[in-house]
Amino acid sequence: MAAMKCLVLREVHGSLVLEERPDLQPGPGEVVVRLHAAALNRRDWWITQGMYPGIELPCVLGSDGAGIVTQCGDGVSDELAGQEVVLNPGLDWGDNPAVQDAQFTILGLPADGTFATEIVIDAAQVFPRPGHLDWNESAALPLGGVTAYRAVFAQGRLQAGERVLITGIGGGVATFALQFAVAAGAEVWVTSSSEEKIHRAGKLGARGGFLYTDDTWWKTMVQEAGAPQLIIDSAGGPGYRALLNAVDNGGRIVSYGATAGPPDRLDLFKLFWKQLHLIGSTMGSPTDFQEMLDLVNRHEIHPVIDGVFPLEDGDQAVRKMADSPQFGKYVLSID
Amino acid sequence: MAAMKCLVLREVHGSLVLEERPDLQPGPGEVVVRLHAAALNRRDWWITQGMYPGIELPCVLGSDGAGIVTQCGDGVSDELAGQEVVLNPGLDWGDNPAVQDAQFTILGLPADGTFATEIVIDAAQVFPRPGHLDWNESAALPLGGVTAYRAVFAQGRLQAGERVLITGIGGGVATFALQFAVAAGAEVWVTSSSEEKIHRAGKLGARGGFLYTDDTWWKTMVQEAGAPQLIIDSAGGPGYRALLNAVDNGGRIVSYGATAGPPDRLDLFKLFWKQLHLIGSTMGSPTDFQEMLDLVNRHEIHPVIDGVFPLEDGDQAVRKMADSPQFGKYVLSID
Repeated sequence: MAAMKCLVLREVHGSLVLEERPDLQPGPGEVVVRLHAAALNRRDWWITQGMYPGIELPCVLGSDGAGIVTQCGDGVSDELAGQEVVLNPGLDWGDNPAVQDAQFTILGLPADGTFATEIVIDAAQVFPRPGHLDWNESAALPLGGVTAYRAVFAQGRLQAGERVLITGIGGGVATFALQFAVAAGAEVWVTSSSEEKIHRAGKLGARGGFLYTDDTWWKTMVQEAGAPQLIIDSAGGPGYRALLNAVDNGGRIVSYGATAGPPDRLDLFKLFWKQLHLIGSTMGSPTDFQEMLDLVNRHEIHPVIDGVFPLEDGDQAVRKMADSPQFGKYVLSID
Repeated sequence: MAAMKCLVLREVHGSLVLEERPDLQPGPGEVVVRLHAAALNRRDWWITQGMYPGIELPCVLGSDGAGIVTQCGDGVSDELAGQEVVLNPGLDWGDNPAVQDAQFTILGLPADGTFATEIVIDAAQVFPRPGHLDWNESAALPLGGVTAYRAVFAQGRLQAGERVLITGIGGGVATFALQFAVAAGAEVWVTSSSEEKIHRAGKLGARGGFLYTDDTWWKTMVQEAGAPQLIIDSAGGPGYRALLNAVDNGGRIVSYGATAGPPDRLDLFKLFWKQLHLIGSTMGSPTDFQEMLDLVNRHEIHPVIDGVFPLEDGDQAVRKMADSPQFGKYVLSID
């Protein structure tokens, strides 16, 4: 009996350690997927730092994966065997498109994730992978892609021709949001602390960008580009105030994170005089996931990959995320 | 030539002083309306305190009025003459339903308002008054009614069967919001600092209410009534935090004011985990105004009037609003 290999986090602030375990067996309704690639998310880094709700260790981390179905459990059509798939990492969303149920979780904590040579998962979570992508690109797509899709479309309701600002470009979700918004016919602008990242965003279709390290960036944007109808942000913090200044009257600000913490003030006067919508978004429903795949297939979008590491170097790859140096995704290639 | 009488604010913190002026003449596209009643809004009190943007004095205050068209200017159909009307107090909203244009103003500053025996106004601002209302009720309707309508429906997107919480019941807008939401088939709850006001809200169709002076009111509400899908608030301030706790996952909080100032923190984590929508709303578009009248006519809603004063006592009536003792509207009856 062959062994599967996986990267396990045994304790907070510990390392991801390679373990060998017995090969997995599918339960009823489940499949086993032989993984060819996984991808990293900032979530993985937060978990290693103990800064995530509901940490239960040991756990195989990893929310993103792509591979081939090798075994089908009872009640699963044998036609799935041999299919090349990506995994929807959102588990038990529930029936309400507006919000996930209380039992919603993400693959890779508490359920063992994709930093492994194989995984067992409910058959409803596997989707045909986009044919124009290689294994690394396929694995880069799921969690960042569905989070960006929900923020931009399901919650942000982006329309073609609108001006949209995506803050903190370079992060996985932000980069997908940029690509998706460009594909949808929006006029896209970005912010970053790095001229280099703004330059790279331009190559993906952004009209331009602004250094948020300059406190008056939002005035520059309004003067030079015009006020955005939609802002997609995951920083929050002290910089959130500038977003309320920048956004167009009647506009929307979608937050899918708060890496800089909660803002220390909410200017309700601006909220109601400008008739704004401040919208929260996280992950996505199965419908969001399918629509995201449809968009990626229709526009032949390729995820941006900043680095590929062998599975064995996963610990090192997660540590590299601490300062968010990347533009796009880090991928683990799995032999 | 007869004289018109009006209540003029000459300086901030001054009194509303009765003046006689020459009778008004309509310009092209305008009508003169002989007013039979006007109504007060908290806006009038803020203006007397100098706490409102763009104060230009002297000015005849008053945003709400009802009366009979007595003269029609060039280009206005003579059929309007003799019609009993209410005035839409929102001037120059513009073409965008999502937000008012920069030139938007409200009747009664800077344009002379309804605390007068007659007024000259663009013919597009007059609408047939609801037939089931008397003059005082008609005058009580416009600004509070359209503000509540926009908050509850255009921005809040209330659906029949939803649970809605209206905070600070007793204010004019909040009371309309209660009546409109009940008429629309929602399950309505309220907050107040007064048991008496909660009791009165019950007579208007509220299921019950909670004293916001108890910091744990929101826990009581979630346990006893269930979390509301929609909250309509005009206080903001330190109490805003409890609204984010109370609101259901995927829910909406509409703010049409911030009488307690801006909240000192915005919990973005709650915003995105609960997938919330925080929405600003103020006044309303001409479409909102027409739809509000349609709702009031269809359900034969009667505005709640807490006090009627002669025009001459308008100054005293405005001063009574300082502590928001009222439940419903204060009206000025005009002979």
